[in-house]
Amino acid sequence: MIVRPASAEDRPAIWAIMEPVIRAGETYALDRDMTEGDAMAYWLGSDKETFVAAEDGQVVGSYYLRPNQRGGGRHVCNCGYMTAAAHAGRGIARTMCAHSMEMARLWGFRAMQFNFVVATNVRAVGLWSALGFEIVGRLPHAFEHPSAGFVDAFVMFRDLA
Amino acid sequence: MIVRPASAEDRPAIWAIMEPVIRAGETYALDRDMTEGDAMAYWLGSDKETFVAAEDGQVVGSYYLRPNQRGGGRHVCNCGYMTAAAHAGRGIARTMCAHSMEMARLWGFRAMQFNFVVATNVRAVGLWSALGFEIVGRLPHAFEHPSAGFVDAFVMFRDLA
Repeated sequence: MIVRPASAEDRPAIWAIMEPVIRAGETYALDRDMTEGDAMAYWLGSDKETFVAAEDGQVVGSYYLRPNQRGGGRHVCNCGYMTAAAHAGRGIARTMCAHSMEMARLWGFRAMQFNFVVATNVRAVGLWSALGFEIVGRLPHAFEHPSAGFVDAFVMFRDLA
Repeated sequence: MIVRPASAEDRPAIWAIMEPVIRAGETYALDRDMTEGDAMAYWLGSDKETFVAAEDGQVVGSYYLRPNQRGGGRHVCNCGYMTAAAHAGRGIARTMCAHSMEMARLWGFRAMQFNFVVATNVRAVGLWSALGFEIVGRLPHAFEHPSAGFVDAFVMFRDLA
């Protein structure tokens, strides 16, 4: 598996990964009826650097990296990761997260923050914990899950020193 | 004091309040060299509803209200408040916050979240606490204060039920 910067040609493959995640509405706080155009504008926005993970030439995941805040908060970055459902459980998110931490260090970020990890997304919470992230905040009932109702979301944080 | 929706004519007065806050860089994670145009695009952005507090026809404070997340997170709102330095300590922020909670309830928001309250901003932390907000997260060294160095920032949260 290689991780490389996303290019315009990757857009259909990125959308193919994002669409089921967005439509399910279980893990990302994005409108479930979000259009492809809005999703691409979000994921590949000018405030972000976007990468893809590819295996045998096929895009199997994507992530973005951006400053989480401006001004006095710009030394902390934020990332979002999505993996193709058909390739779940094979370490793609882990590989992308490790890559993102390396890129973040290269770009001078001192820490990484996830603003909104849905508590029912136990796979993500477990993976980020295993990769050194700590739960530094709990947002009570901040996410309306399509089947579980109002559930908490976590703020997770990791120093990159 | 009245609180009313901001209009285009309020822009110079809003900028006069914002500029010293932004230039000081002590309380908001915004670039200290932010231009007036960028600041207005941020504070009066299409994702926000913006209000001003006025006394004897003079704008003495401003706040915005917006959904903090989209999709499953859109029932939680976020606000930012700024008060004219010359009018600090006279309850303007308190009045604006009370107004924002009423507006948020009217618009159907179920909770309000502040994402980044700088820990050294003890006046704000004290006021939000007095108004029922709880510290639900602590972001370690997430803010570089111009004189205090790297300090924590709080995530504060309040149910609106």
